[in-house]
Amino acid sequence: FEYDAPSMKTPVPGPKSKNVGAVNFFCNYEESRGNYLVDADGNRMLDLYTQISSVPIGYNHPALMKAVTNPIHLSAFVNRPALGILPPENFPEKLVESLLSIAPTGMTRVQTMACGSCSNENAYKAMFIWYKVKGNVGLSRRKLRTHMRHPHYIVFLQGPGCPDLSILSFMGGFHGRTLGCLATTHSKVIHKLDIPSFDWPIASFPRLQYPLEEFVRENAQEEARCLEEVEDLIVKWRQKGKPVAGIVVEPIQAEGGDNHASPDFFIKLRNIARKHGCAFHVDEVQTGGGTTGKFWAHEHWGTDDPADIVSFSKKMLTGGYYHKDELVPDKGYRIFNTWMGDPSKNVFLTEVLNVIRRENLLDEVTRSGKVLLQGLYELQAQYPHILSRARGQGTFCAVDARDDVTRDNLLLKTRDKGVLLGGCGDRSIRFRPALVFKEYHAHQFLNIFNDVLSEY
Amino acid sequence: FEYDAPSMKTPVPGPKSKNVGAVNFFCNYEESRGNYLVDADGNRMLDLYTQISSVPIGYNHPALMKAVTNPIHLSAFVNRPALGILPPENFPEKLVESLLSIAPTGMTRVQTMACGSCSNENAYKAMFIWYKVKGNVGLSRRKLRTHMRHPHYIVFLQGPGCPDLSILSFMGGFHGRTLGCLATTHSKVIHKLDIPSFDWPIASFPRLQYPLEEFVRENAQEEARCLEEVEDLIVKWRQKGKPVAGIVVEPIQAEGGDNHASPDFFIKLRNIARKHGCAFHVDEVQTGGGTTGKFWAHEHWGTDDPADIVSFSKKMLTGGYYHKDELVPDKGYRIFNTWMGDPSKNVFLTEVLNVIRRENLLDEVTRSGKVLLQGLYELQAQYPHILSRARGQGTFCAVDARDDVTRDNLLLKTRDKGVLLGGCGDRSIRFRPALVFKEYHAHQFLNIFNDVLSEY
Ligand code: FES
Repeated sequence: FEYDAPSMKTPVPGPKSKNVGAVNFFCNYEESRGNYLVDADGNRMLDLYTQISSVPIGYNHPALMKAVTNPIHLSAFVNRPALGILPPENFPEKLVESLLSIAPTGMTRVQTMACGSCSNENAYKAMFIWYKVKGNVGLSRRKLRTHMRHPHYIVFLQGPGCPDLSILSFMGGFHGRTLGCLATTHSKVIHKLDIPSFDWPIASFPRLQYPLEEFVRENAQEEARCLEEVEDLIVKWRQKGKPVAGIVVEPIQAEGGDNHASPDFFIKLRNIARKHGCAFHVDEVQTGGGTTGKFWAHEHWGTDDPADIVSFSKKMLTGGYYHKDELVPDKGYRIFNTWMGDPSKNVFLTEVLNVIRRENLLDEVTRSGKVLLQGLYELQAQYPHILSRARGQGTFCAVDARDDVTRDNLLLKTRDKGVLLGGCGDRSIRFRPALVFKEYHAHQFLNIFNDVLSEY
Repeated sequence: FEYDAPSMKTPVPGPKSKNVGAVNFFCNYEESRGNYLVDADGNRMLDLYTQISSVPIGYNHPALMKAVTNPIHLSAFVNRPALGILPPENFPEKLVESLLSIAPTGMTRVQTMACGSCSNENAYKAMFIWYKVKGNVGLSRRKLRTHMRHPHYIVFLQGPGCPDLSILSFMGGFHGRTLGCLATTHSKVIHKLDIPSFDWPIASFPRLQYPLEEFVRENAQEEARCLEEVEDLIVKWRQKGKPVAGIVVEPIQAEGGDNHASPDFFIKLRNIARKHGCAFHVDEVQTGGGTTGKFWAHEHWGTDDPADIVSFSKKMLTGGYYHKDELVPDKGYRIFNTWMGDPSKNVFLTEVLNVIRRENLLDEVTRSGKVLLQGLYELQAQYPHILSRARGQGTFCAVDARDDVTRDNLLLKTRDKGVLLGGCGDRSIRFRPALVFKEYHAHQFLNIFNDVLSEY
C-alpha cells in the first residue's frame, strides 16, 4: 500500500511520544511508506527531512524489503567481517557493481567505512599520510621503521612521529563531531563547546547575496576575498610550522545553513590546493547520492578533476571515501579499524542504485526540485517579511526565515499540518526529501506551507 | 549442518585469495559455521581470531539467521532511523531487554553508537562536558549561551569555547584510531605515525612478570610505580593548564599485547580518578561481551563502583557506552550524530544475549578457557625456548613467542594446519574465540599447536 497525503490525529509530539532530551517524537517505521513518516500516535507526515537526509528512496521500499528476505544475502547480514583483512570472496566485484559504478571523475579507488565521521576522520588521515610520505623519503622514514619494532620507543616518537600538520576548513562547515572532524566543524558553537581542538586554519566561506542575478559583482568579490584568505592561511600555517596537508569543503554547506558558492569558486579553490601541494577533499556526506539532481553535487562544477578525495555516507547507507591512486597509504593497516564498513549496507546500496537507474530518479529530482524552488520563490515574493534567500540545487533547497524564533515556529506549525522539515544554520529551513519525492509532493508541501504562512 | 574439525586444501592464502594490501585471504562466509571459518579455496579453519574478536556466537548461528528472516524485524533492517531524534516507538523497551539487561554495576544509562571508535570519541566528549559543566556554573556558561545564537562569534570562542582539557591514557593502550581515540592509543608506532595528536598525558601500564605466583612482590611494586606515575601526571597536566578530565583504561590491554594487571591496581586507579575529580572510563570494546568468563572483564575486580563510563562494541555488535547519571550532558544534541547506532544491530544483540543465557555460555567460556590456559602452560613448559608468559582470563588468553619473527612464523604455520590465530603487542599470540568455543575445540587447537611447535 501507499499513501498520498498527510493525515494528522494529534499535535506532534503526541501523547505516545514522551519528549525525552533531544528526541522529537517516536516513530512507527512499520507503517511508514515512501515519502510519508508515521509517528507513534498514528500521525502521517510528508517527510522532507528524511532522518537528517539519510533515506535515499523512502521508507519500506519494496526493493529493500526484498533484499533482506532474499536468502542470497542472508550471510551478509549475519556475518559481519573484518573487511580490511578477511573480506567475503565476492566483495571486490560487489564494490565494482555498487560504489565503483558511481565513482566521481578521476577517482578509481574507494575505501568503505561505516559512517560520515569515520569516513572523514580516515580521509584526513589519508591526506596526512600522503603529505608526509610524498615529502619524506629515505633516511627519516627508514629510521622510524626501525623504531616501530620497539614499542617502548613510542614516547620517544611523539615529536617526529606525530607531526604538526593541519587541515584547512571553512567557517560554517560541518564534517562530523568526533575530535578530528570536529576540529574542522564550525557550524554551531554548541558542537565545539568544552571539547579540546587542534590549532588548524579556518577560512571564510562566501556569503552570497540573493537573488544571485542582482549581485553578480558583489558575489564575485566575496568569493575572491575568501579565496585570498585561503591562500593567506596556507602560507601563515606553513610559517607557523603546521603546514596544511589538505583542504576540506562541502559543495553546499549543509548544517551551516545551506551556503552555496559558484562552480568558479570551487574550481579556483581546487587549483589553490594543487598549487600549494595540499590535498583537496570534497565532503559529500550530505550532498551526495543524487539529491542535487546529479549523483555528486561537485558534478555541477563541470570539471574533470574535482578532487583528490570525496567522502560520503547518509543516503549512500554505507560510509566511505573515493580517492586518487596517489592517496593509497604506503603500507597496509595505516587506514584500518575492526569492521571497515558493513557488507550488509552494500547490499542495500546496490538495490538503491538499481532503483535510481530504473526509475530515472535523478531526472525526477531535477523536476520536483524545480517545482519546489519555484514555489519557494513565489512564497518569498508573497511573504517578504517572513521569507528570503530561497536557494537550491535539485531538491536540496533552503529558504531563510526572518529570525531563529520565526524559523522554529514555522517548523512546528508546518509539522502540525503534516509536513516534517529541518532547520540549519541560524535561521534557515532546509529541504531534504528522498529521491522518490515527486512534483506531486512538492505541490502538496507548497499548499500546506502557504496555509501556514498565511495564518502567520 | 555443523563442522567438527579443520579441513585444509591449499596453503593459506590459496589461489583464490589474491593477496591485496592488508587482506589476509578471502572468505566464504556462507559455508562458515560456528567456530569454523571457510576460505575462498574451501579451506576450513578453527577460528580463534573471530574477525578481530567481534563474532560473539560463531558464524551463521541459527538464531541470527532466524532473526533476519522474521518479518517482525524487517523494518529495523530497512529503515535506519536518526535514533537521537526519531527513534522507533518501542526502542526504549528494546534497550531495556538488550543493553540495559547487562548494564555494569552502578550504571543506569546507555548511549548507543555504531563502532568502537565513535563509542570512545563520544565517551571522551561526555567526560569533557561533565568536567566543564561541574566546574563552571553561572555567568560564564550564560555568556556562552548567548554567543551560541550568533554563529559568527565562533572564531571568538576558540579560546574559552575549546578548553585545554586532556584524557590520561596508558602506554600500550588501544582505544581506536580516529583522531581523538588515537591520541590515547599507544600500542604500535605505525598507528600514530604522521597523524597530528594532542598533548595528553600517558602513564606506564604495569609490566607483570610471570608466573605471577613467583613475582608477587615485584609485580606489586610495579603496579605501585605506575599508580604513582598516574598521580604525578595528573598534577603535572593540571599545572600545565590542561587538566585531566578523564582516565581511560582497558581491563586487559588487548592490542598492546594482552597486558594484565591485578584487581587491586584497577581499584586503586579508580580511586585516584575519584580523588582528583577525573572521570573513570573503562574501555571494554575488546574485553566485553563474555569472553573473560564474566560479561564484563571489570567484574573480575569485584567492586561495586567500577567506573563512571564503560564503552563497548565488537562482540556486542552495536557500539555504545554505559554511564552514570551525572555524565548526562547538560543539554540535548551535545552528544549527537546522524544515526547514533543502528537498531538492526540491537535485533542481533538481543538474540545473542538469549543464546548466551539459554546455553550458559559464560560457564562454557570459563571451562574451555581453563583447558586452553592449562594447555598453554604445558606447552610453554615443553617448549620454553619458544613460548613464555602464558596468561588469560576465560578464553581471553595469550602467550608470548621468543621474538616477532617466531611469532609471525607460528601464526602462519598454525594457519596452514587449520587454526586461525591473531598477534598482538610485539611478540604475543592472542586467543579470541567466540563464546561457543568448547573444551573440545581447545583440545583440537592444542593438538595442532603442539604439532607446529614440535616441528619448529
Ligand atoms: S566512527 Fe563511524 S561508525 Fe563509528
